[in-house]
Amino acid sequence: MRIALDAMGGDYAPATTVEGALEALDENSAMSVILIGDEDEIFQELKTKNRKGTQISVKHASQTVGMDESPLTALRRKKDSSLRVAIDLVKSGDADAMVSAGNSGVVMATALHVLGKIQGIERPAIAAVMPTLKGRFVLIDAGANVDCKPVHLYQFAVMGEAYARYIFNIENPKVGLLGIGEEDAKGNELTKESFKLLKGSSLNFIGNVEGKDIFAGEADVVVCDGFVGNIALKISEGLAETITKMLKREITERTSGRIGYFFLKDALKSFRKKTDYSEYGGAPLLGINRPCIISHGRSTSKAIKNAIKVAGALHDKGVLDVISREFNEGLSRREEVAIKE
Amino acid sequence: MRIALDAMGGDYAPATTVEGALEALDENSAMSVILIGDEDEIFQELKTKNRKGTQISVKHASQTVGMDESPLTALRRKKDSSLRVAIDLVKSGDADAMVSAGNSGVVMATALHVLGKIQGIERPAIAAVMPTLKGRFVLIDAGANVDCKPVHLYQFAVMGEAYARYIFNIENPKVGLLGIGEEDAKGNELTKESFKLLKGSSLNFIGNVEGKDIFAGEADVVVCDGFVGNIALKISEGLAETITKMLKREITERTSGRIGYFFLKDALKSFRKKTDYSEYGGAPLLGINRPCIISHGRSTSKAIKNAIKVAGALHDKGVLDVISREFNEGLSRREEVAIKE
Repeated sequence: MRIALDAMGGDYAPATTVEGALEALDENSAMSVILIGDEDEIFQELKTKNRKGTQISVKHASQTVGMDESPLTALRRKKDSSLRVAIDLVKSGDADAMVSAGNSGVVMATALHVLGKIQGIERPAIAAVMPTLKGRFVLIDAGANVDCKPVHLYQFAVMGEAYARYIFNIENPKVGLLGIGEEDAKGNELTKESFKLLKGSSLNFIGNVEGKDIFAGEADVVVCDGFVGNIALKISEGLAETITKMLKREITERTSGRIGYFFLKDALKSFRKKTDYSEYGGAPLLGINRPCIISHGRSTSKAIKNAIKVAGALHDKGVLDVISREFNEGLSRREEVAIKE
Repeated sequence: MRIALDAMGGDYAPATTVEGALEALDENSAMSVILIGDEDEIFQELKTKNRKGTQISVKHASQTVGMDESPLTALRRKKDSSLRVAIDLVKSGDADAMVSAGNSGVVMATALHVLGKIQGIERPAIAAVMPTLKGRFVLIDAGANVDCKPVHLYQFAVMGEAYARYIFNIENPKVGLLGIGEEDAKGNELTKESFKLLKGSSLNFIGNVEGKDIFAGEADVVVCDGFVGNIALKISEGLAETITKMLKREITERTSGRIGYFFLKDALKSFRKKTDYSEYGGAPLLGINRPCIISHGRSTSKAIKNAIKVAGALHDKGVLDVISREFNEGLSRREEVAIKE
């Protein structure tokens, strides 16, 4: 399987993207990666890493997209940007999936424009993976659509469920609606209507879920609009980081703390691994016709590696075909709900 | 100053409420607390604690409100509930402020019905205090209003700012709008319009703030609608708890971890204190005519003690009068914005 990687996307690119690609290839001999971007810079990185081989190739792109650029401007003026070329390669069939840690709004708009949506899907959504006490869950939509209708949340649920089923290998994923109370009737206008749609669907819907439930691992899929989802995601990241910093400060401020740290090193390392977003790879843009993965702007090489693995799994397991079938062929109950709305 | 305490509110009441009241009185000899609820149960608690004195009194209330009861039913059928009687005492002038860890929706509805709103305020809001790396911030609205208009968010900002100014003693509190990107134009329909209102006001508005900003302490007041605020609050609580549990598990699973823990005890304790919601006391219902404080359903005695302290400070510093003046007399710029909208 061939992954098109936007080698210029992310705060520390191309060092992290090139390194991440090499790490991913080390783990999967059936994979190849096309590094897209400024070829001089990319070759320079490859040279310092002293790596060659048939698994890796480079495609030059003369432009890059800034983190603050608007999707419209980028679509119009950046037709040779590294992220655009990556998406074009997927369109032409020269790559099976793409990964970018660049401007996520631009990736989304470009993917929509170039690759289009799965038939039946009104709005593609970002599916982010987050840790729980027991394992992990999918948060969908994590930021693609700020103002949503109930039918959108229903479609996010169907896509997130397929993702959890095939990527996490969960047989009948539990779907929860992110809300502010466990009772059915609690929520805002959007979630109250979405609740009814989800309850009437064939999904394994467990009702409203709150902050304490989701980190306890009560749902495999947590559904919300993209505004709420993005806030939930960023608050979680911000708080996990802050807590780690607070703990570090508490420890280093004390002599006994520094001794304790020596004995606790392994425990703290394992803890950090569990709360580190980069362990959970990239977030797929579910609903786009082909596998597109966005990764955090601050992605490390490990985050890039994991995003590439997610891209590969999405392609290998045919998750997008499953979603397409659910909306367009079988599972009539779900389709009915969507059409009725 | 006299605090009316709903002694039956909260998962562990009346043990925690009575204990919390006694702890608050130990710290403030100018305060008195009226414990309201089942007098047999309350006297039993006081007896086990072997405490008497003029600072404490008991008022019987024959009913309690369950955590799942609807505000309408409670308003109609629970006229002698402990929380209703607490609010009635504030209305009659027999108490200066009230505290309840009971059903927050019912407290809100009853306070609105019995005490009314500050003139000019369209919707009272819950102001919750959350920790940051540097100190703390006010999150408003933390759950009272699920569907809001821009003018409501503007009013929340003015009330939260007064709270931060008088309770945190910050001269010119920085006000941020909880959003999904730092650029002005990012957000949903509600936040984009609210952004314009806040920018045109005389508040010290610093623009949109995200998860990483708020825990870094960039804003003293973080404004959002009650749906988003409640999710933000509960996700933060849920995650802080989960991280503590994960860390504990990592530590106790290893022998070296247990040794390390011995040396780290003080650091971990101080860390827990900083991330423990009960340290931050109750959340005032700002916009209600008199000081009403709601506390977490799972409140410990320490949380109750801190909620009582917040109630006292709100009364002592006349924060509600300040808010009333800002809306109805002076500070014409702010008033204009509110009226224009």
